[in-house]
Amino acid sequence: MYGPMAYIVGLGGKRVRPLLTLIGCELFDTDPRQALHAAIAVELFHNFSLIHDDILDKAPLRRGKATVHEKWNHNIALLSGDGMMVLAFDRLSRGHNQHTGALLKLFSKTGLEVCEGQQEDMNFETADEVSVNDYLHMITNKTAVLLGCSLQMGAICAGASEQDQAHLYEFGKHVGIAFQILDDILDVYADHDKFGKQVGGDIIAHKKTFLLLKALELADATQRQTLQALMADASMANADKVSRVTALYDALNIRQIASQEANLHTETALRHLAETNADAAKKEDLKRFAENLLHRHT
Amino acid sequence: MYGPMAYIVGLGGKRVRPLLTLIGCELFDTDPRQALHAAIAVELFHNFSLIHDDILDKAPLRRGKATVHEKWNHNIALLSGDGMMVLAFDRLSRGHNQHTGALLKLFSKTGLEVCEGQQEDMNFETADEVSVNDYLHMITNKTAVLLGCSLQMGAICAGASEQDQAHLYEFGKHVGIAFQILDDILDVYADHDKFGKQVGGDIIAHKKTFLLLKALELADATQRQTLQALMADASMANADKVSRVTALYDALNIRQIASQEANLHTETALRHLAETNADAAKKEDLKRFAENLLHRHT
Repeated sequence: MYGPMAYIVGLGGKRVRPLLTLIGCELFDTDPRQALHAAIAVELFHNFSLIHDDILDKAPLRRGKATVHEKWNHNIALLSGDGMMVLAFDRLSRGHNQHTGALLKLFSKTGLEVCEGQQEDMNFETADEVSVNDYLHMITNKTAVLLGCSLQMGAICAGASEQDQAHLYEFGKHVGIAFQILDDILDVYADHDKFGKQVGGDIIAHKKTFLLLKALELADATQRQTLQALMADASMANADKVSRVTALYDALNIRQIASQEANLHTETALRHLAETNADAAKKEDLKRFAENLLHRHT
Repeated sequence: MYGPMAYIVGLGGKRVRPLLTLIGCELFDTDPRQALHAAIAVELFHNFSLIHDDILDKAPLRRGKATVHEKWNHNIALLSGDGMMVLAFDRLSRGHNQHTGALLKLFSKTGLEVCEGQQEDMNFETADEVSVNDYLHMITNKTAVLLGCSLQMGAICAGASEQDQAHLYEFGKHVGIAFQILDDILDVYADHDKFGKQVGGDIIAHKKTFLLLKALELADATQRQTLQALMADASMANADKVSRVTALYDALNIRQIASQEANLHTETALRHLAETNADAAKKEDLKRFAENLLHRHT
C-alpha cells in the first residue's frame, strides 16, 4: 500500500499546490513552515486523486511512466489511493492547533468538489448535450478549486482575515480555470516540436473540451452536422480528422474566443489578488508564479 | 455519486459504530448529541469501506442486495466511496470546536489502520504462510480498531480524560476481536436453520480464518497434509469438504480453543471497562450492549 504512494509522489510534477500553500502563508508575513503540514496535505490529496482518476480513465501512463494500477493492479491502486486520502486528512491534525477546524472544513468541502468534478467529467463521456457552462462547472470542480484551496489553507495558517482568505481562494480558482482553457487550446494549437504530447490528442479522443463545446454552440446547422459527423467517425485517419476539425475551429474563430475566456479569468484572478491585503512585493511574486504557470501555453 | 451513498447506508445494518460513539459520550454524563457528527462520521467511514471492500472482493451481494459496483458500475462505486470518505472527515469539522484536532487525529490514524487491515486481508489470499498472530493483527486493523475509535470519539466529545479514553478504546477493540473470532466459529458451527448464510462458507471459499490457521498450527504432519490437500481440492463436493474439514477441526479441538481465545478478549475488554471512571449504571448498559453483540454467536 505504501510502495505505490511513494511511487506516484516520486513521479514528480511541479508541486504547484503545496507551493501555493506555502506562498499563501508567507504573503501574510508568516513563516511558511507554519503551513508545511497543510502543504503536504494538498499534495497528498492531489496524488490520491491522480491514482484513482487513472483507474477511472483506464490510463496506462502518468508522466510517461506506468500508472499505479498498471504497475501493480487495480486493487492495490484503489487501496493506496484510499490510504493516501486518509494520510492527507491526517496532516491537518498536526501542528495547526486553533486552525485545524477551519482547515478541515475547507479541505473536505474542496475534496468533495473534486470528486463531483470527476463524476461530471465521467458523465460527459456519454452525455449527448454538454454546454460550455457545464464544462466550466466541471473544470472548476475538478481542477480549479484545489488551487484556490491550496492558497487559502496557507492564508488560514497565517491567521489572515476571512476576506483576504476569500480573495486568495478566488485568485487561485480563476487561475485554475484559465489554466485549463489554455490547456485545451494548447492541445490543438501547440507547436508540434515543443509539445510533449500528440497535437490534437483531444480531438482524436473525441474529448469534450472548451473548444469543441464552444464550436458546437456557435456552429450553424451545417457546421454542427459536419463536426458531429467527424466526432462520430471511427474510421477516418487521425491526422485527417485533426486538420478538418481544426479548420472548422478556425472558421468559427474558436482559438481567439477561448483565449479571451482564459484572459477573462486571469483578469478576475488578478483583481482578487490586488484586493488582498498583503505585502505588495510578495503579491508581485505570486503574480509572476501564476504567469509562469500560464505562460507555457502561449 | 450521491445515489450510491444513500443506497449503501439505506441497506441497513445494526449501526453499532455510531451507537458506540453516542454511548461513549453519554457514559461521561454528557448529552450524546454533542457526539452526533462524530457518530455520523464513523458510520460514513464504515460505509465507504464497505463500498470499496466489495469492489476489492468482487462481491455481488451486500446484506442480500446488489453491491454498489454491481448495481451501478466500478467507476461509480470507486467515486462514491471516495466522496463518502470525504464526507466522513467533513463531519469532524462540524460543531466539535476544541475537540476537532483530537477527533481528527484518532479518526485518521484509525482510517489508515482499516486500509492496512484490508491490504493484509488481500495479501493473505495469495500468501503461503499466514500465522494465527498475522490473522489477529489483520482483524484488529480491519474490524476492531474502528469499534475502539467509535467509543473513544464519543469520550473525546464528552471531554473525558485521556486515561478513560484509552480504556474505552481498548474495550471496543477487544470486543471487536472477540466478535470476529466468534464470527469464524459461527461460520462452521452455526445452527443451519438460524444462520442467514451457508454454513461452512469460509471452508468452501478456502478463507484463512482463525479456525483454519489454528488447525494448521496444531496439526501433526499427516493432518496438515490432509488439511492442505482439502483446501487445494477444487473438484470435491462442498458438503463433503465442509464435513471433512470440520472433522479435522473437531479432532484438534479447534472450536473450544477459538472460544477460549474469544473469551480472553472479552475478559480483557471488560477489565478495561471496569477501570473506566464513568457512571456505573451506564457502564452496565454498555456491557449488556456488547454482550448482545457477541451473544448472536452462542
